[in-house]
Amino acid sequence: MKSLNFEERENKLKKDIEKNDIDLFIIPPSVDFLYMFKGAFQISERLVCGIIQKDDDSILIAPSFEKKRMTKFTTFDDVVTWKEEEDPYAVLRDAISCNVKKIAMEPTTPFEIYSRLKKKYPEAEFIDGGFLIRKMRSIKDSAEIERMEISGENTVKGILKTIENLEEGLTELEILKRAQKEMTSLSGEPSWALVQIDENSAMPHGPPSNKKLQKNSVILIDAGTMCEYYFADITVTTVFGKASEEFLKVYDVVEQANDAALLKSKTGVPAEQVDFAAREVIDNAGYGKYFTHRLGHGLGLEVHENPYIVKGNKDPLLSGNVHTNEPGIYIPNKFGIRIEDDILVNKTSKRLVSFDRHIWS
Amino acid sequence: MKSLNFEERENKLKKDIEKNDIDLFIIPPSVDFLYMFKGAFQISERLVCGIIQKDDDSILIAPSFEKKRMTKFTTFDDVVTWKEEEDPYAVLRDAISCNVKKIAMEPTTPFEIYSRLKKKYPEAEFIDGGFLIRKMRSIKDSAEIERMEISGENTVKGILKTIENLEEGLTELEILKRAQKEMTSLSGEPSWALVQIDENSAMPHGPPSNKKLQKNSVILIDAGTMCEYYFADITVTTVFGKASEEFLKVYDVVEQANDAALLKSKTGVPAEQVDFAAREVIDNAGYGKYFTHRLGHGLGLEVHENPYIVKGNKDPLLSGNVHTNEPGIYIPNKFGIRIEDDILVNKTSKRLVSFDRHIWS
Repeated sequence: MKSLNFEERENKLKKDIEKNDIDLFIIPPSVDFLYMFKGAFQISERLVCGIIQKDDDSILIAPSFEKKRMTKFTTFDDVVTWKEEEDPYAVLRDAISCNVKKIAMEPTTPFEIYSRLKKKYPEAEFIDGGFLIRKMRSIKDSAEIERMEISGENTVKGILKTIENLEEGLTELEILKRAQKEMTSLSGEPSWALVQIDENSAMPHGPPSNKKLQKNSVILIDAGTMCEYYFADITVTTVFGKASEEFLKVYDVVEQANDAALLKSKTGVPAEQVDFAAREVIDNAGYGKYFTHRLGHGLGLEVHENPYIVKGNKDPLLSGNVHTNEPGIYIPNKFGIRIEDDILVNKTSKRLVSFDRHIWS
Repeated sequence: MKSLNFEERENKLKKDIEKNDIDLFIIPPSVDFLYMFKGAFQISERLVCGIIQKDDDSILIAPSFEKKRMTKFTTFDDVVTWKEEEDPYAVLRDAISCNVKKIAMEPTTPFEIYSRLKKKYPEAEFIDGGFLIRKMRSIKDSAEIERMEISGENTVKGILKTIENLEEGLTELEILKRAQKEMTSLSGEPSWALVQIDENSAMPHGPPSNKKLQKNSVILIDAGTMCEYYFADITVTTVFGKASEEFLKVYDVVEQANDAALLKSKTGVPAEQVDFAAREVIDNAGYGKYFTHRLGHGLGLEVHENPYIVKGNKDPLLSGNVHTNEPGIYIPNKFGIRIEDDILVNKTSKRLVSFDRHIWS
């Protein structure tokens, strides 16, 4: 696989910082930290943050006892450390030499970090740095796309293998575990899954239960595995046995909506237009009120990221965006059907993985 | 088991809010949300938050398609919903009738939520609400202690079972998985573990590797399972075979430090004093420079929470606090020894679980 180019990312953000007259960009452990500095750390109550400076080299602040771990797993060769009994925010301020007027915060930074930093820089302006880093992350380069294709393939194979081995009486939770296991045995990385049977599938995001698979049950599997932290997000809805006429009728509508969205998605098109294209198909078929969520979301190091494919988002799609295409029709107390795949945006957008989804008998 | 009393918690926080002249307390999905409103949700880019109001009933804001899930899994009977194409912050503002001058934010609230909320309330003062909710969470009632005793017992049993079944050649990662499996089979809930062998144990927080267990290896297992989201956090350091004289000598010092800290911990004692009590023992034995971290931290719905047992924390311990007691001596390129248990603070503090840790031959 091609290497991920962290240096290029940091240089690009540094240029954007200069352009926006930002003195410091503060990035605590988060997906943005992983993207920029390679380390996949959980945030904790002990201050750790990478700081990109307009007028100086980037620095990493961390507890002194973590120094070895920090240099081993990030792009930093050195660390500005603080001892357990010290005020880490004072250490941070002392490590910054420039005159700080404007500070951009990584958007998921806990309020507490902002609040304590503001005490050290009471005159500085604090802004949400999301507009810089999120756009950057939404444009995938070839090394990232390579990883997303691999995670997509492993996800599809894992879901199909799970469906192949379904048995009557298995619960949602049991099927969920099997799906995770199948995907992880292919990818070697963590996997997630949602499994819903019959009327449960009509509640998007509903939790898995002990509901059992029966002959001719509708089953919805929404799942993904990773490749070096890059996610896939695929939903397959099928029938364990023979599909009813109503299922086939609704399925056909959702499938047409999914195709219409793929056709509409391309570089320069306002994101909401892709949602409208799918919604129009479902509205025209009379199921509009059962399509209760947006069409999709960007995908990458997070399962939900920019660009959001939703009414109101008029930002044009960019070449290199990857977004889900997941129209659904949810008929309460009956079933829900969602067809979801992942699309790479270009002059002609394409599915990252294609496969035959008509698995019922 | 006794029921957790969410109503009492909310009423208590509401009183504290009045006392501090706070109009709104904003709580997005987080551990504090779980504590206050029962739901264990992941935070996402779609705004969800519980709002405790000084002058009105608490409300929950959530996406309209999540309404059913939200009422099912939280203490709220109703939800103020926003549609995919709406501005959730405008919906929030419209749902609040009072004059908002001061807003407390749950301390882990992402900067982005603060930043968007501030645009709706440009004149309001925003403060970190951590000082109210964290103190409250640090004082465990009998229903909480019951759960923590259960998670402690299951953790100890799981660790001891793992040690009993150790075999030469097993890797840190393999032992880690076994420990998780043992604990989870007892608790029925998720478990976590760190396993370090020989010189790896000298790096606190180091990640698990493929390093193999050998005859007479030092092995450190730091692990915990949960009981209804309440954590345990226990570390056992032992030898797979015969302990060396150096190991026994260092072990004895760490054990004495652990005992000294337990004796010092009681209601009203400044938290840092408990750290000092253990550190004094280790300093006097000449190993001071190898005890590189604080003595401990509070424990509950998070593995790290208030009170922190660290130099500089002069806050008195409170009856009902639960904190770890985890002195350690880490000798680079040799081994590290940490003895960790969980202490319930009272006039006489006690270990939540006691057991024989001398497992080597």
